Amino acid sequence: MSGALPIDLWVTMGSTYTYLTLMRLGPIEASTGIRFRLRPFNLRAIFDAAGYFPFPAGSPKTTYMWRDIERRAAAYGIPIRVPAPYPAKNSTLTNWITLLGLEEGWGREFVLAAYRRWFQLGEETGSDEHVAASLRDIGQEPQRVLDLVQGEHLQQLWRDETGRAREVGVFGSPTFIANGELFWGDDRLEDAVSWCRHGRVVLPER
Amino acid sequence: MSGALPIDLWVTMGSTYTYLTLMRLGPIEASTGIRFRLRPFNLRAIFDAAGYFPFPAGSPKTTYMWRDIERRAAAYGIPIRVPAPYPAKNSTLTNWITLLGLEEGWGREFVLAAYRRWFQLGEETGSDEHVAASLRDIGQEPQRVLDLVQGEHLQQLWRDETGRAREVGVFGSPTFIANGELFWGDDRLEDAVSWCRHGRVVLPER
Repeated sequence: MSGALPIDLWVTMGSTYTYLTLMRLGPIEASTGIRFRLRPFNLRAIFDAAGYFPFPAGSPKTTYMWRDIERRAAAYGIPIRVPAPYPAKNSTLTNWITLLGLEEGWGREFVLAAYRRWFQLGEETGSDEHVAASLRDIGQEPQRVLDLVQGEHLQQLWRDETGRAREVGVFGSPTFIANGELFWGDDRLEDAVSWCRHGRVVLPER
Repeated sequence: MSGALPIDLWVTMGSTYTYLTLMRLGPIEASTGIRFRLRPFNLRAIFDAAGYFPFPAGSPKTTYMWRDIERRAAAYGIPIRVPAPYPAKNSTLTNWITLLGLEEGWGREFVLAAYRRWFQLGEETGSDEHVAASLRDIGQEPQRVLDLVQGEHLQQLWRDETGRAREVGVFGSPTFIANGELFWGDDRLEDAVSWCRHGRVVLPER
């Protein structure tokens, strides 16, 4: 729908299902005319405050999560090598860089490059090598970026955005806010688009 | 597909999303020819062993869960009044009765009647009144049933089925096992059907 508000897409690198969503954004924007506005935030802080981590190592739910993502990636036609290194040890740094990149106009490109390296090449996200290579993939000079993300401006923005996520009820990634309505999970991306277009969830025939 | 194996549907009354799945089974069986075999089990024991409860009272995730179920019910055309009384305090009794009823041939009818009273009339599931009324809805005499579910046969079956659920990796309700492949959640019902028909997940166009 032309003139539709963008969908706020709250994301954290470190989330696995977010890979599926980010890889699908371009085609969905092209076919619907609806835009997504990426908003990185500190999901780990929200999990820590709730005393909760959704995918404990070795649990049946975590085993299932990888299989589900693998099946869905195949259905979407998205390349993947599972399991990727998980849990992500230092994803905070990649989230800071994404946030800076969104201010400078290369944030989406960066997060896609970083997720590709994590989910297609098996690199540990947030490692020095992974961050530098993902930045070079998109033509950004690593040292300049690493200096900037430690600065007060970016750190304050990171705290503010995380506070805003909490205020609007975000508890996971990806989260979509479409005209004020919250949808959680890659499998609700189409529900959010449907909300933008029709003001309700319209399900497909299958 | 004629001749296809039934899909094992592991369910626990107490689960909210399971309402959406149970209300959709009949039409899906009619349109696909695939049958679902209900298998009640003790999900609470599995949560307790994991030290985990997915929907803590008052959490943003729980607030979201009701809204998501309400939107999806509207999209499916399923009547609902949200929130239903939750968490379910004594759902174990309704699960025992469903298990007995499946042996006697009225288990699915019972669990549907019990869920309707919980999700459409706002009755507390597993309360004396709710159980008696749900049984009378389907022409079963409450006292006979309540005596039988306390018996050793049913209690042993309940423990055995819960052990079997654990063995095959079940960690939530509803869980579908289609030709040995596990799918979790109402939003994976179509994936499970797709697995039966095509041996892979085929997603709809939307």
